Amino acid sequence: MKGPYSSPKYKQMKPYTQNFRKVSPYTPGEQPGKKNIIKLNTNENPYPPSPMVKEALSGFNIENLRLYPSFVCSPLKKALISNFDESLSVKEENIFLGNGSDEVIALIFQSLFCGEKEILFPDITYSFYEVWAKFYNVKYKTIPLKKDFTIDPEAYRVENSGIILANPNAPTGIYAPLSQIEDILKANPSSVVVVDEAYIDFGGESALKLLPKYENLVVVRTYSKSMQLAGIRVGYAIASKETVATLEAVKNCFNSYTLSSLSQVVGEAAAKDKEYFRKTTEKIIKTREYTVKKLSELGFKSLESKANFIFTTHESKKASFIFEELKKKDIYVRYFNKPLIYNYLRITIGTDEEMEKLIQALDSIVKS
Amino acid sequence: MKGPYSSPKYKQMKPYTQNFRKVSPYTPGEQPGKKNIIKLNTNENPYPPSPMVKEALSGFNIENLRLYPSFVCSPLKKALISNFDESLSVKEENIFLGNGSDEVIALIFQSLFCGEKEILFPDITYSFYEVWAKFYNVKYKTIPLKKDFTIDPEAYRVENSGIILANPNAPTGIYAPLSQIEDILKANPSSVVVVDEAYIDFGGESALKLLPKYENLVVVRTYSKSMQLAGIRVGYAIASKETVATLEAVKNCFNSYTLSSLSQVVGEAAAKDKEYFRKTTEKIIKTREYTVKKLSELGFKSLESKANFIFTTHESKKASFIFEELKKKDIYVRYFNKPLIYNYLRITIGTDEEMEKLIQALDSIVKS
Repeated sequence: MKGPYSSPKYKQMKPYTQNFRKVSPYTPGEQPGKKNIIKLNTNENPYPPSPMVKEALSGFNIENLRLYPSFVCSPLKKALISNFDESLSVKEENIFLGNGSDEVIALIFQSLFCGEKEILFPDITYSFYEVWAKFYNVKYKTIPLKKDFTIDPEAYRVENSGIILANPNAPTGIYAPLSQIEDILKANPSSVVVVDEAYIDFGGESALKLLPKYENLVVVRTYSKSMQLAGIRVGYAIASKETVATLEAVKNCFNSYTLSSLSQVVGEAAAKDKEYFRKTTEKIIKTREYTVKKLSELGFKSLESKANFIFTTHESKKASFIFEELKKKDIYVRYFNKPLIYNYLRITIGTDEEMEKLIQALDSIVKS
Repeated sequence: MKGPYSSPKYKQMKPYTQNFRKVSPYTPGEQPGKKNIIKLNTNENPYPPSPMVKEALSGFNIENLRLYPSFVCSPLKKALISNFDESLSVKEENIFLGNGSDEVIALIFQSLFCGEKEILFPDITYSFYEVWAKFYNVKYKTIPLKKDFTIDPEAYRVENSGIILANPNAPTGIYAPLSQIEDILKANPSSVVVVDEAYIDFGGESALKLLPKYENLVVVRTYSKSMQLAGIRVGYAIASKETVATLEAVKNCFNSYTLSSLSQVVGEAAAKDKEYFRKTTEKIIKTREYTVKKLSELGFKSLESKANFIFTTHESKKASFIFEELKKKDIYVRYFNKPLIYNYLRITIGTDEEMEKLIQALDSIVKS
């Protein structure tokens, strides 16, 4: 028996593919299959999750996996709220949870950026913003960073249907002071201003404190960086009740149950261990400052980072060259072949031992 | 200090909400907070997951949660493949994984149904199809089921940009024989035909065997029903290499890492325990047949179900009345207030004990 596609002609044409969408997807950092590499390319946390995660998982009743997870996620939201300053009076109705902050932001593009005008974001920032804008047909305009890679709040005083900023910014690591975020919020009362705080815990002050004053603010957070839990895929937005209600309604047009029961339990446990969070975060900051100093001795100039990575350029060796040389030594960092930043490397902060090995490797590369 | 929204006027207007999308979301089955209820309303499996799930979770190295999950998901795909007939030669490149089959289908709507013409699905079927079509601006036409709630393959011989069918259908439970599915595939070589097999393991024969002949076929499966794992949110599609590549590209425009590491490990373990799967599935089928018989003695007429639920109507009592009366007795079933099916109840197959209690409750309700 021959099917409709058994002839060579059909094999070539594949007529059923005529209705397929053609897209240019986001490229995530390489996930090398090799073991024993030093992986400094996707801004993961070098420390394991809180010991309370193990406890929570052992205590979890596996029989419950037969049931759909809660889509209210009350215990997880309560644990998150316990970490916010009480004066902000964040309630469960102010929290929107998603399958990683990427899903949260993808849903923001589909639900809050639906005006006629362009949305705004910096020309150099998390490269997924442009992918989402194109994919969801959201018109956008990129706003150039200043020469020193800082944002120019004045440039956000143009008509728009929404604004999204990463703070600290990616891949630069540069933190915009809250006064600048407030300027932008104040100048745009008719737009939502999304502040993507994936890296805020490594030295910046959160825009969350502006929420009681600016209902147009949406703060996005993730478990993937400072919480040591990229593996569970949990991110969230904190926003006005109206904004969260819109996000929930749109989510329910897509997928009602986005967070597995296990991710909810793990996320809840980790949020409760404030002391472990504080200690590991401080350690990463310390390692970052040490690494910046050492890199500088090797001829690297690093942007001032408030993130768990360093964005750095060398006085004589090309970034692409260093990137490839490091790979040969089984050290993976991130290189972006893009205008303005093509001579920079983004290096995630690992453990002290990993950074020592990196510095030794760089020493031999730049002196070669 | 006063923010821009502190005046009553602004409180009323909330100008930043002007760019928000307004939608009519899908309504999932009720998840009552109460304990000790009999929950027969969301087609969950009454049996716990395979004991191998517990083992897999205890063996999981929690330290790895600091890392992003694999987006290749090779071990999980391999475990799934081990359950397919070898003659189908399903490879990893033929499997697309998602955060529940709802996410998989939502991505199908965004990637495979992008033609100019309408897509087709039955007028009575999984109600999320219509929500997705509206939300993603996919034009659609519903094809009426026949009077006996079976599909009419002839009616799918009209121009279209894609077809989606649930088999067995929801909420009827009726199974369309493979010859009918093949008719539709054959008549539509220029469209993708998606067969949503969420309930296939409860008595139907999978369309998977048609895949070598029809490259335009996409089979969708879930861990939520026969696999006892609604809590981990894993679903998948099996399709041609080209179709899967398109789904992957579109997924990477949305969210690169949709499956948590824990869900991957649990899904892999469950897929390997074929014997447990067989036993629990057989048990549910047996309980279903027994329940249908008992219901019939009480004056219920049930459609012939090949799913883990029964769609049933009573000779004298209204479905809406029975639904409310059952709820008073802490038994939750599903009622759809929609044309053609407003006098039916959808009842998930629970354990034998749960079904005995249901039958007792129904006995007292219909005789009241």
